[in-house]
Amino acid sequence: MSVSIEHAQEVLRPPETGLAYLRHDRAGELTLEGGSLTLEGGRIAAFAVDQAADVRIDARGCAVLPGLVDCHTHLPFAGWRADEYELKVTGVPYEEIARRGGGIAASARALAGASDDEVVAQARGLAAEMLAHGTTTLETKSGYGLSVDGELRALALAARLAGEVPQATRSTALLAHAVPDRYTADTWMDEVEGMMGEVAAGPASALDIYVETVAFTNEHLTRMGRLARGHGLALRAHVEQFGTHRSVPVALEAGARSVDHLACLHPDDIAPLAASECAAVLLPGAEFLGAERTAPGRALADAGAICVLGTDANPGTSPVVSLPAIVGLAVRRYGWSVREALLACTLNAAWVLGLSAEAGSLEAGKRADVIVLDGPAAHVPYRFAHNPVWAVIVAGELAWVRPGSEDRVHR
Amino acid sequence: MSVSIEHAQEVLRPPETGLAYLRHDRAGELTLEGGSLTLEGGRIAAFAVDQAADVRIDARGCAVLPGLVDCHTHLPFAGWRADEYELKVTGVPYEEIARRGGGIAASARALAGASDDEVVAQARGLAAEMLAHGTTTLETKSGYGLSVDGELRALALAARLAGEVPQATRSTALLAHAVPDRYTADTWMDEVEGMMGEVAAGPASALDIYVETVAFTNEHLTRMGRLARGHGLALRAHVEQFGTHRSVPVALEAGARSVDHLACLHPDDIAPLAASECAAVLLPGAEFLGAERTAPGRALADAGAICVLGTDANPGTSPVVSLPAIVGLAVRRYGWSVREALLACTLNAAWVLGLSAEAGSLEAGKRADVIVLDGPAAHVPYRFAHNPVWAVIVAGELAWVRPGSEDRVHR
Repeated sequence: MSVSIEHAQEVLRPPETGLAYLRHDRAGELTLEGGSLTLEGGRIAAFAVDQAADVRIDARGCAVLPGLVDCHTHLPFAGWRADEYELKVTGVPYEEIARRGGGIAASARALAGASDDEVVAQARGLAAEMLAHGTTTLETKSGYGLSVDGELRALALAARLAGEVPQATRSTALLAHAVPDRYTADTWMDEVEGMMGEVAAGPASALDIYVETVAFTNEHLTRMGRLARGHGLALRAHVEQFGTHRSVPVALEAGARSVDHLACLHPDDIAPLAASECAAVLLPGAEFLGAERTAPGRALADAGAICVLGTDANPGTSPVVSLPAIVGLAVRRYGWSVREALLACTLNAAWVLGLSAEAGSLEAGKRADVIVLDGPAAHVPYRFAHNPVWAVIVAGELAWVRPGSEDRVHR
Repeated sequence: MSVSIEHAQEVLRPPETGLAYLRHDRAGELTLEGGSLTLEGGRIAAFAVDQAADVRIDARGCAVLPGLVDCHTHLPFAGWRADEYELKVTGVPYEEIARRGGGIAASARALAGASDDEVVAQARGLAAEMLAHGTTTLETKSGYGLSVDGELRALALAARLAGEVPQATRSTALLAHAVPDRYTADTWMDEVEGMMGEVAAGPASALDIYVETVAFTNEHLTRMGRLARGHGLALRAHVEQFGTHRSVPVALEAGARSVDHLACLHPDDIAPLAASECAAVLLPGAEFLGAERTAPGRALADAGAICVLGTDANPGTSPVVSLPAIVGLAVRRYGWSVREALLACTLNAAWVLGLSAEAGSLEAGKRADVIVLDGPAAHVPYRFAHNPVWAVIVAGELAWVRPGSEDRVHR
């Protein structure tokens, strides 16, 4: 199938082709100029109109962006934890919520109690909602298994999900999320080491660990880094979310591809992180809904870090699937420009997943993942909680059109 | 037409019937219990299934709420101001934005430069988006006219809009929004006084004024109160948004129906406001997007104020049309329960508009404005930026169904 996207008011393009990522002090070099786009054989073919295309999309007045990349989600998970959220915002202490059975343990119980079909069906629904909000590539994570069998099942469910959604997906094994019952953090890490052969034989492309007082330590992060290196997997780490543990230097030493959260990043760690080839993945949904501190997004961008945004979609701290809403939160909280925010959920997010040669920017030859908005790019953060996406193309196929906008698609 | 909404997981109902409003220290008395609803002749008929109804809606697993009431919007307006928002968040001072032609003056120019058809078409589109987010009653405001003819035209456009949207609407004459060129605040108030005959002869049900350093003073608020009383109109006032001017006692003295914004409310004004029959209309969209202070929503609710939420939909400080998103912001910022937030955008919001005998709660005999959610009510704030609404009924007619959910509606 060939698709021609015609006469857009703005097309977001990188300042040069072939970039693996673009450091955020260069985000202003992204261009937003009028133009057209032709897609053929699942690839971006040219920046021109093709009057003979099978599908022609009228993009006048619209911004055309690369499909959004959500590089930090906790799909697939089972059920929700809305009641827990109400307790949290109305001031019930975390310990009391935990005493009532809340927290990661609640999601682990829900996952254990749900059938494979139920888990995949819920995640498929959320992936469909993500698609309608412009997400054409997404990460999946394990982490609610909390046992060897549970984690392997979660990875298998993620693999099944990958085959049932239109998006490209990448699987992360979050093998150290919470310390399971009857383990210490150390003895659980022994189990993780024992299951690495099976994990590495599967489709997971990264290992992940949660470093926090209630979870694992910097020493475990170093150990996870060794496992990742030993098995040819990328290392990612949830760090500095609720407290400052100086985990970033440890993660850099361990060769991490990304450090995620950073609400409590120590100021001294900004420069080394910005100078490194490790992405700063900021999760303003979790920050906002958890009343967390604000990650130093402005300082990281100014320092030239590889900044990234994700939804952190999960049933506890960020039950959010819309990257446009995350862009709205980020722009307001970090004082980012529109280009800075869009760079963070396109090219740089694709790089975190090891996919930036294929996705994340509009360049000839890349996979034709393209979204069309109902206004200029500046509307994404500004029209907060409005879904600006009206057409989504994944690998050259029209994957979603907003009901009521079909008349702008000519076949 | 008769409609039967069947086997809902939760139906939001007031603790007693016939309430004009419910003070927020009683919000916990709202009930959320399973049930069914029958609508006939545009009215709520009974809380039971009607197997012979023309339309039967399968509400299993769903919350059923009264249609949401947005009592503070600036519809109709023309164009947007997204570029100005990017300047604001990236740190360009307000004076510089104003120097470049931004602010209310920019929207006034856009309104003056747009045809009637253009203005109404944009507003109709936004009202449609509001409908799909559950808003079945909305306020319109003038205020971007900034001349006698301009304000009268804005009121006429609002009246025309009222005839072209499915929702019930109420018109507010925001006659003192910004001081027009070539006027002082005093001489503009003279003009306002001169146009009152024409305004009062139209459909406006309230007068409104913006009290702020850059706009009007407490003395003008008192004067607007006299005009409102003299013409049988309600008085509303934008107060304490960016600074503390102690406008609330003045507004109470002037007999205001509501005081809106309150981000900078003086602590001493909480108790008198809470004891009065004047609503505290909080606008967390403007607070969030403007990086304003947080209104004392928790303290106002605890003190028994009539608390209300609105979108403040406008192209400057709050280009937000989704009340569910506003509920999400409010619950997080104010530490409100789900019931507190829903009360604030249903019954109490209807009372601000003088419509609570007709709208704002599910009671037999009231207008059949009903929405059906895709999960429990607790999901509204929790699944932030997700639109939970899948069916909207206005005056007994099915006004909107989420595409893809039609199979739950049996005709």
